[in-house]
Amino acid sequence: MTDYDYATEIDVRLRDIDFMGHVNNAIYATYLEQAREAYFRDVLGISLEETTTVLVSLEIEYERPIEADETVTVALRVAELGEASLPMTYEIRADGERAATARTVQVLADPEGEGSRPIPDDWRRRIERRRD
Amino acid sequence: MTDYDYATEIDVRLRDIDFMGHVNNAIYATYLEQAREAYFRDVLGISLEETTTVLVSLEIEYERPIEADETVTVALRVAELGEASLPMTYEIRADGERAATARTVQVLADPEGEGSRPIPDDWRRRIERRRD
Amino acid sequence: MTDYDYATEIDVRLRDIDFMGHVNNAIYATYLEQAREAYFRDVLGISLEETTTVLVSLEIEYERPIEADETVTVALRVAELGEASLPMTYEIRADGERAATARTVQVLADPEGEGSRPIPDDWRRRIERRRD
Amino acid sequence: MTDYDYATEIDVRLRDIDFMGHVNNAIYATYLEQAREAYFRDVLGISLEETTTVLVSLEIEYERPIEADETVTVALRVAELGEASLPMTYEIRADGERAATARTVQVLADPEGEGSRPIPDDWRRRIERRRD
Repeated sequence: MTDYDYATEIDVRLRDIDFMGHVNNAIYATYLEQAREAYFRDVLGISLEETTTVLVSLEIEYERPIEADETVTVALRVAELGEASLPMTYEIRADGERAATARTVQVLADPEGEGSRPIPDDWRRRIERRRD
Repeated sequence: MTDYDYATEIDVRLRDIDFMGHVNNAIYATYLEQAREAYFRDVLGISLEETTTVLVSLEIEYERPIEADETVTVALRVAELGEASLPMTYEIRADGERAATARTVQVLADPEGEGSRPIPDDWRRRIERRRD
Repeated sequence: MTDYDYATEIDVRLRDIDFMGHVNNAIYATYLEQAREAYFRDVLGISLEETTTVLVSLEIEYERPIEADETVTVALRVAELGEASLPMTYEIRADGERAATARTVQVLADPEGEGSRPIPDDWRRRIERRRD
Repeated sequence: MTDYDYATEIDVRLRDIDFMGHVNNAIYATYLEQAREAYFRDVLGISLEETTTVLVSLEIEYERPIEADETVTVALRVAELGEASLPMTYEIRADGERAATARTVQVLADPEGEGSRPIPDDWRRRIERRRD
């Protein structure tokens, strides 16, 4: 059983619906990005837009389609924090039912160079506090 | 070493570029969808739009960012065909360099019901022929 | 001075931001579509998705850029109703300030053919009632 | 009768198709942006991404829907050049037939401030030469 640290509601748009009548598969990745942005703002107190994080990997398992009129929530938790990597697991829910699960890994890019930089201690503290 | 069965060029749009100045992570999933559509059309002789395939899973590893002015190609191969599942592996290349690798599994939905239906023999033949 | 009949809030997504750091010009059209969908649901009691309306024209004047962290509202009013056409005027506001104005005309498509069909009387009554 | 100065082909994506089975109305604005980008690159010899142009207005008349498998071309011409404004008219064609017409006005933003800046003489020369 997985507990999630944080959840945010997503506003499904008509434009998210594809030719098959459901939320398009690529849009799930956008929903995850929205959830990361909300987590960064609410838990870390920073704007994802102002932070140079880079997505390293993305995995989604689609369990059932999402319709235009459903209420979508993304729950997430930060998995084992690395030195520079911030892994997250997610559950995308439609009308309260699990519609997909996902995992991402992102790293903090070094603004001066090509590499990554360590996750700031202040972030670690806020992430841990949220978890308890 | 992986050999690919098929490759298609993707037209990068300005709209694909996000606030960080690179192709947005979710757009990679759209590039994969475009590659599947081209494969269905060119190899299977059918339109993805007219076929009710459902994406079951998606995995992407991002290796380096893609810029707006780069030429993007998606190479793909069909991995081990299941009874009803069509697994694919991909390489997304930007200006000839590997920018990401990916895997998807899709199934053929049963138009009459909730379940999946077997991959038609004609498809199997065409997929095998392409591979050789 | 224009009075608006209806207003709805739009959730700005990171993906809406383009390479210039602002909400992309085409996304404004998506915000208008979201506002129409909300109006159809709340005022006409129907789902835009289940109604075959066709957009005939779209005009947008961009007054100032919209940033990712701004609160966006779309206000709209139905202009002079035609026999078959539903013209709307809009104001897109960011943090309470006018960021754009827009106009659209849509018609109800005849599900059986190529042409349009008259706006139902029940719609007219609901639109008028909302206006007062 | 309008003559166009320039035309570019657009790759329709499955993701452009909406719940009604046609290219979504907002995507037309993206096609126009793609055409501007191609014009800037091919005629002005510069990247739209590196130029701070700002869209001031957009008008689209939709004449007939565009299907996923159609070949789309956008033709454009620069209308009367202003001191700082670059007005364009467009025709969006699907399988050779006119599907929409459009107009945009963009201005060159002053990178140092809030206002606009004059269109460079070199641009004027290239635009005129293309027109003849």
